[in-house]
Amino acid sequence: MHEEMDSTLQTNSWQIRTQRYRDAAAAKIPEAWRLHKKFTEDVGPASQRSVLDIPYKCGILTERELDITENYDVVALLEQLAEGAMSSEEVTTAFCKRAAIAQQLTNCLTETFFDQALERAKECDAYLAKEKKTIGPLHGLPISLKDSFNVKGIPSSIGFVSFLDHPVAEDDGALPQILLALGTVLYVKTNIPQSLMTADSDNNVFGRCLNPNKLLLTAGGSSGGEGALLAMKGSPIGVGTDIAGSIRIPSYVNGTYGLKPTCRRIPYAGQKGPARPGGFGVMPCAGPLARSVRDIEYFMRAVLSFDVWTVDEAVIAVPWRQQKLPAAIGESKKLTLGFILEDPKYPVHPPVLRTLKTALAKLEAAGHTVIDLAPHLPPDIIVDATENAFTNFAMDPAKTSLAHIARSGEPIVPSIPTALLPETKHFQPSVDDVFRLNVERAKICSIFRKLYVEQKLDAIVLPIYQATAVAHDHYGIPVYTTLANVLDHPAMSLPYLKADKSLDAEYRRDVSYIPAYVPDEVEGAPCGIQLMGRPMRDEELVVNAQVVVDALQK
Amino acid sequence: MHEEMDSTLQTNSWQIRTQRYRDAAAAKIPEAWRLHKKFTEDVGPASQRSVLDIPYKCGILTERELDITENYDVVALLEQLAEGAMSSEEVTTAFCKRAAIAQQLTNCLTETFFDQALERAKECDAYLAKEKKTIGPLHGLPISLKDSFNVKGIPSSIGFVSFLDHPVAEDDGALPQILLALGTVLYVKTNIPQSLMTADSDNNVFGRCLNPNKLLLTAGGSSGGEGALLAMKGSPIGVGTDIAGSIRIPSYVNGTYGLKPTCRRIPYAGQKGPARPGGFGVMPCAGPLARSVRDIEYFMRAVLSFDVWTVDEAVIAVPWRQQKLPAAIGESKKLTLGFILEDPKYPVHPPVLRTLKTALAKLEAAGHTVIDLAPHLPPDIIVDATENAFTNFAMDPAKTSLAHIARSGEPIVPSIPTALLPETKHFQPSVDDVFRLNVERAKICSIFRKLYVEQKLDAIVLPIYQATAVAHDHYGIPVYTTLANVLDHPAMSLPYLKADKSLDAEYRRDVSYIPAYVPDEVEGAPCGIQLMGRPMRDEELVVNAQVVVDALQK
Repeated sequence: MHEEMDSTLQTNSWQIRTQRYRDAAAAKIPEAWRLHKKFTEDVGPASQRSVLDIPYKCGILTERELDITENYDVVALLEQLAEGAMSSEEVTTAFCKRAAIAQQLTNCLTETFFDQALERAKECDAYLAKEKKTIGPLHGLPISLKDSFNVKGIPSSIGFVSFLDHPVAEDDGALPQILLALGTVLYVKTNIPQSLMTADSDNNVFGRCLNPNKLLLTAGGSSGGEGALLAMKGSPIGVGTDIAGSIRIPSYVNGTYGLKPTCRRIPYAGQKGPARPGGFGVMPCAGPLARSVRDIEYFMRAVLSFDVWTVDEAVIAVPWRQQKLPAAIGESKKLTLGFILEDPKYPVHPPVLRTLKTALAKLEAAGHTVIDLAPHLPPDIIVDATENAFTNFAMDPAKTSLAHIARSGEPIVPSIPTALLPETKHFQPSVDDVFRLNVERAKICSIFRKLYVEQKLDAIVLPIYQATAVAHDHYGIPVYTTLANVLDHPAMSLPYLKADKSLDAEYRRDVSYIPAYVPDEVEGAPCGIQLMGRPMRDEELVVNAQVVVDALQK
Repeated sequence: MHEEMDSTLQTNSWQIRTQRYRDAAAAKIPEAWRLHKKFTEDVGPASQRSVLDIPYKCGILTERELDITENYDVVALLEQLAEGAMSSEEVTTAFCKRAAIAQQLTNCLTETFFDQALERAKECDAYLAKEKKTIGPLHGLPISLKDSFNVKGIPSSIGFVSFLDHPVAEDDGALPQILLALGTVLYVKTNIPQSLMTADSDNNVFGRCLNPNKLLLTAGGSSGGEGALLAMKGSPIGVGTDIAGSIRIPSYVNGTYGLKPTCRRIPYAGQKGPARPGGFGVMPCAGPLARSVRDIEYFMRAVLSFDVWTVDEAVIAVPWRQQKLPAAIGESKKLTLGFILEDPKYPVHPPVLRTLKTALAKLEAAGHTVIDLAPHLPPDIIVDATENAFTNFAMDPAKTSLAHIARSGEPIVPSIPTALLPETKHFQPSVDDVFRLNVERAKICSIFRKLYVEQKLDAIVLPIYQATAVAHDHYGIPVYTTLANVLDHPAMSLPYLKADKSLDAEYRRDVSYIPAYVPDEVEGAPCGIQLMGRPMRDEELVVNAQVVVDALQK
């Protein structure tokens, strides 16, 4: 009886509490940055509309702010900042305003700390004026972070109601520490799914993040807020984390670039996590979402110019081995690219098939060699890899993440049951399973290693997902991204083409698409390809990605 | 009844079988390389004598062969080989002969393949003559390998009687593949303990390896055969593996140099292992035992000039970042060295204390800064780290290694019970333990990381073991080496001084030495210090080790 009463109290209180939390968050957006009602009337998770044009139309940003947020990538912004042609204060103001607009349309943010950011921006400007040099290679640049990154003085609830009881972060996490040392301005944290283990960034604290390309589509997850914010140009570059696609999925569905690096290259310490500490097997890693490949290369190089082990003992402490980017290597670099079109159990939707085939044809036309890997791979390898990962994710007997949900009485969000392998539902993990999963994983890694050697591959092209962005809560298990996590190979999502039902029609096959293919619903959704490279060769992957992008853009 | 009969049959058969195996191995040593009886009369595990001088005295080696095996380190030999001043055939012959002598005195070898080695050496010579260039950076050099390395066509029984039923290795392991591609000659494999988990290289297939410095002392383990062979100058450089000190212990007790690299830098794939596949937590790694620091540096650089990932998907695939060696950096490099004198639960023996204090005084006199880390470390950290590792080693519910022993009916060797933590005797591992051990280990790693940062350390000096080599089967738990395995920091054993009861007397304290300190028994035993560096900074560690050795030799 006593427990029941407590539970009723909790049920009431979590709703009241989260409503208050959201109201307080909304109140932090300055009056002048609030959208006129006419721009938000038909905004919501059932709306067909794109909101990508609203920052331009809404009149909140000045001409200069539109220019700053739209016409410069990170490398270009940093040049302007270092020269003093732009102040950090004006760049930060522009991105704060645009992020605030993005938030009102897509609910992509969790925490905002605009005042603090502007103070920091002014310090950067003062430093440059006084010292005649930059603080570091990311001087004055605003960078957005997934909610899970601890930033001193800011809550990290990661969407668990029960975590609202936690004190604010006492310290900056390892990566925020580095970013600040390199000169960045931190200004917002971004929305995520409850548990961080689904591809729909929806939770009971902050609500659901929408895809700005089309609001009824998922913004992806778990770094969904980053993807939506980037697409809205409310951030020049953001950092997410990825254990099964959580960087690449939101990059993809929102139409931006993303890199899941080799694990432990970018410090991960100081994350607020949903999982039990001491986890093992397939592990998460941090990486950038950005507007261009060169921004991703620059970010990695900048972060790894720092002695990263001094802030995180778990990193593989090796410097970035800078490679020549295509502009420097000219047209001469010809790649040998393996490709995987699909796993027949997860047939790729017509726009995805068209995108892949178009990309491969362009790559061949540009003189690159493309090799179908299907004859060289066990037919079930992608499904096997996914089962390995998702069984690994179910190895905690304490089911820590679910306990965080249960503690407050909040309900489980609708996407969680869709993102579990049925096989793991009643799974009772044993120590024997730890050995078994390691052996199976090593076998998969060995198969791909031999494939690279035998076929002399530079990289592998594959789908990021079997569909484009789909309606909310239909994403399911991300088999095509999980592969790179199981292999621990670095992998990038590269945006390319868009769903177009008339062009896609001829790619439709008589197969059972999961999730369903609804041409009208996904019309205009961003498409893309995944490029996977060799482990610890993030440097080469980024260069090869630039070569691929150059070929696709011809 | 049936089972009992089987067991009796097995008991008979393992003894007959191993005797035949040893007889066959002994018969492979050419008549001309067999020692006169007078040199082997008082040889055995109870003998006080050193056999280090017998290769010189026995008359089996020519003057030239004595010169080749005694007066050149690896770097010098490779210069001679590359210039054609020495042929690989003569260098290989010299080391084959000297290894055969070492075997007759210390039982340091498992498998010998001299004929095959000489064929290969002739091929190396022919290649050089024809192509006017070397096969690679290890051209023509004989290298010895611990028995666990698979070499095509050679058995890898690792001392388990039950493994005598296994077919010979079908392929070269990853590292042997690389070594052959770089030009080496493989000629012997070396002795190990049953289970590979004790510091006494004793097993029922090959028998016990003795310490050539003093036969009644342990040769260490698990790469004990390597240590003894190196000390006998029967190999210019050898490769062992280390999960709790298995490279550093035999290097130390035999008086040679050893490096346990950061795990996964040197390929480990293709080992015949005693443990269950799919293991986790504190893991073994491969590394060199050698006569000089510069040989270790050269070996690492040579191996990592190969694209190691192409033969082993588990490596951290990063090239060697060559640093300037002291000869090149002059006298200018001044180090900041933390030191750990002891854990009071494992008080260091008088010769060890004298060695450490003498070394630290020399280092200070040479201008290096030495910092006592005791005030900055939790008092039990070395014991806690060891408990973490040894609990980790007991995580296999199937107790695979013991099952390999039981299968043949052979008895457990005496040192195995001495090398188990009592706490793990009735341990029933659970998945919760996996999480717990990971959390505890991460904490220990974090403490050392912060120490490096706060104290600005270049490296840490600590004992390799609380004693020198002790009598057979008394080594126990190697707490001072296990620390680096738990941290996954690279660590080297550097030989320095020898036990000397008159000098050591003043370092004797009223403490309970475990194992017992018996001055007469250990008189003349090699001493040394351990130098531990930052993870993935094997490059810097090797250079700092050279700086330390230079200071000690002044």
